Amino acid sequence: MLLCGNLRGGRGGEAAGQSPFPAALRSASRAPSLRGSDLQPPGAGLASPEPRAPAAAGASDLGGPPGPRVPGLPPGRSGRRAGPPLLGGSLQIPAAGSARSSAAAPRTMGGKKVCVVGSGNWGSAIAKIAGSNAARLSTFENLVSMWVLEEEVGGRRLTEIINTEHENVKYLPGHKLPPNVVAEPDLLKACAGADVLLFVVPHQFIGKVCEQLKGHVKKGAIGVSLIKGVDEGPDGLRLISDIIHEKLGIEMSVLMGANIANEVAEEKFCETTIGCKNAQYGQILKELMQTPNFRVTVVQEADTVEICGALKNIVAVGAGFCDGLGFGDNTKAAVIRLGLMEMIGFAKLFCKGPVTPSTFLESCGVADLITTCYGGRNRKVAEAFAKTGKSIEQLEKEMLNGQKLQGPQTSAELHRILKSKNMVEKFPLFTAVYQICYEGKPVTDVIKCLQNHPEHIFVRSPDFLGAFAERWKGRGSPSRPWRLPA
Amino acid sequence: MLLCGNLRGGRGGEAAGQSPFPAALRSASRAPSLRGSDLQPPGAGLASPEPRAPAAAGASDLGGPPGPRVPGLPPGRSGRRAGPPLLGGSLQIPAAGSARSSAAAPRTMGGKKVCVVGSGNWGSAIAKIAGSNAARLSTFENLVSMWVLEEEVGGRRLTEIINTEHENVKYLPGHKLPPNVVAEPDLLKACAGADVLLFVVPHQFIGKVCEQLKGHVKKGAIGVSLIKGVDEGPDGLRLISDIIHEKLGIEMSVLMGANIANEVAEEKFCETTIGCKNAQYGQILKELMQTPNFRVTVVQEADTVEICGALKNIVAVGAGFCDGLGFGDNTKAAVIRLGLMEMIGFAKLFCKGPVTPSTFLESCGVADLITTCYGGRNRKVAEAFAKTGKSIEQLEKEMLNGQKLQGPQTSAELHRILKSKNMVEKFPLFTAVYQICYEGKPVTDVIKCLQNHPEHIFVRSPDFLGAFAERWKGRGSPSRPWRLPA
Repeated sequence: MLLCGNLRGGRGGEAAGQSPFPAALRSASRAPSLRGSDLQPPGAGLASPEPRAPAAAGASDLGGPPGPRVPGLPPGRSGRRAGPPLLGGSLQIPAAGSARSSAAAPRTMGGKKVCVVGSGNWGSAIAKIAGSNAARLSTFENLVSMWVLEEEVGGRRLTEIINTEHENVKYLPGHKLPPNVVAEPDLLKACAGADVLLFVVPHQFIGKVCEQLKGHVKKGAIGVSLIKGVDEGPDGLRLISDIIHEKLGIEMSVLMGANIANEVAEEKFCETTIGCKNAQYGQILKELMQTPNFRVTVVQEADTVEICGALKNIVAVGAGFCDGLGFGDNTKAAVIRLGLMEMIGFAKLFCKGPVTPSTFLESCGVADLITTCYGGRNRKVAEAFAKTGKSIEQLEKEMLNGQKLQGPQTSAELHRILKSKNMVEKFPLFTAVYQICYEGKPVTDVIKCLQNHPEHIFVRSPDFLGAFAERWKGRGSPSRPWRLPA
Repeated sequence: MLLCGNLRGGRGGEAAGQSPFPAALRSASRAPSLRGSDLQPPGAGLASPEPRAPAAAGASDLGGPPGPRVPGLPPGRSGRRAGPPLLGGSLQIPAAGSARSSAAAPRTMGGKKVCVVGSGNWGSAIAKIAGSNAARLSTFENLVSMWVLEEEVGGRRLTEIINTEHENVKYLPGHKLPPNVVAEPDLLKACAGADVLLFVVPHQFIGKVCEQLKGHVKKGAIGVSLIKGVDEGPDGLRLISDIIHEKLGIEMSVLMGANIANEVAEEKFCETTIGCKNAQYGQILKELMQTPNFRVTVVQEADTVEICGALKNIVAVGAGFCDGLGFGDNTKAAVIRLGLMEMIGFAKLFCKGPVTPSTFLESCGVADLITTCYGGRNRKVAEAFAKTGKSIEQLEKEMLNGQKLQGPQTSAELHRILKSKNMVEKFPLFTAVYQICYEGKPVTDVIKCLQNHPEHIFVRSPDFLGAFAERWKGRGSPSRPWRLPA
């Protein structure tokens, strides 16, 4: 396999002929070559201000012998870390003062290998972070592979540009990637041997990507979906992480939040949420993704985190209608809040595990919702829809180069589910967005429908979400506030 | 007393000489006079679309004999409702088709008397709503009094203008008030006999208002504070509702939400939250305040609802700093979210009763916070502060005519409390806002402080607010999500 650990430290020669990796990359862990002008010091802006335990402590935390093994991650690779350095000098940490000197212990082999599956705007921004952290932390193998759907840019292959100039000039121009992030056009080669797979392709491609990967993923690997959106299955909605899990048989987590890719790449402060059912995996993923300006919270309700990323787009369409109709701040805040309530209600219906309001107070919930309802293209196109009277399809052509807007699509998928469950009237905002976009109802209905919202009218159980999920009825505890009937 | 129930129906003649109430007002319940061109049909835009029980059912719901009495409200007044009409024709509902015909049963005497204590922008908007509902519902006496601090406007007394033109031309120009809202310059006269007092004066005046009212409030009356802000007491913060309760001895509720007064007056759709510890009072207040475009949710955690209205202003200052520093949507969303977390944390420290995350998902929480952080003068002045380097005091002079900005003031009050409790470092945003406004720290500190926010770093108990309130530690239940240590 191409991107094995041995590649680092100049041992990847046998692979070089088959790959576009430049020599400079293969010696990325050698300190002097890192200081060249073409290299963005990856740790400079990203070094953690928190005191870090030395690698040995990390190894014990993360399952290296003799500590407990991380379930699902094979002991073979992490086991090596405790042994003597295999490759001599090239495994030492760079000279003091270099960008990587924040790793307090000598760099050992056998860290977890990371692959970024995708290289668009968001994929490249994430590769910048994961690459910097992998270079800095002994938990991870230095080299981070990035699968790039090959294309020509100005007469050169995109992978070649990325691997020589360390910049995705097409999808994230103006931002240097760490040199240990290596672009690979062959999906199987990119993912070979990877312990952590970060999926960040457009959601319509995920099925095809999984088909190709099937049977080729390392046993015990874990995946993270950074793909916002949901897929349509025979029984209604399907989470992207579920699709990946079913096809590849790997345990999946998700990463969602108020994360506009360019701002993340610019290292402007923001937060994100990782939804991960396994606490130890959560710890590993947090280490891989967190920087001083990209703050990670890990919560257990992965399905809730993921569904937020899809549902917020429907709310943003509603917020855009308000803007287009000339309503003010009060109305928009009400639409956002009622949308959030419907998101919670739908998550309670849809997710198999528990759904708690506090998860919606994370970055994946309220923060992402705010960003999407004030910025975001769903809001923008919906505003134009209300102002111009043109169809969504027409506006997609004019404003999005024919790309599909996610909010209306998701509202249609939800509508089918709600109808089949006889729950349409409990989600008036979601329903209004669907009916306005697809059934010719007037845009002003978005407000009318909210005047009789179950949030204001239904008899509530002590649990504040009782209106949405019948199964919660009567299960309130004395410590929960009562709510008035209408 | 001047504004007693008898005033309605032309029986207030003996009081008229002392007051500026015009004759047209005193016969406001007579249908024909309501249709004049000077009268805005108060029910037209505000009539409830929900089917309403006839007055008799309402009386039983609300404590009229022979049903259970509303605790704290004396039986005397409501008792009268069951009796025969005292004033004949003038108590009948207006002719069918009039604005008030939505009241299905004959209008009886003895409804609860409402007084709006204050007549600024927000007070007038609220008087418009309360007046319309009082005119429509048998639960309330038709006449709603509004205390107006007398002043001259264009050579005429403001009360006189309001009572003849039904418009507060100074503080809510362009919006007609219902004719049954009657302005009264004498505080004691305005409040005499009132069963429900809506306090909506600037918060610095509330002490003086209460001093004057002391001993003159009807026994069993209830109060609602619509005043945003907190007061400084010898032991730190004091809720405005607590001040009123202590001085007047009446039970207090609060009404807070994303409610910009002009938009409420324009009847643009929005929501609000009533915090009320007594479910029956909550029902009465919801009836008084809710309209199709002003949707009310009642929750029990009144202190939480009230503290939100003060704390959000500090968060808005932080959001304004971000805007001034040129940070993008991600950062602003993170500041708003972390601000919300600190609001929850502080409420848990400060409020005596339970504080649940779901209350922060109400209009008083997340919706009001969003509105304030995107509109609002705290945000605006803070943005200018970051851009110009001028002091807050200077900007108050230049941008607010010398009025004090609430966010910085509240941050100073909080800072004293947090210092005394040794909790400063657990509220980095609140603390940074204080230090930037008053201690000369650089504005960029607002971001630096967030990089080590306890939300991201502290070891959490299963309860997601464990980081803030030690007393919650270890009290998580299996149904709550786990959270990772950093």
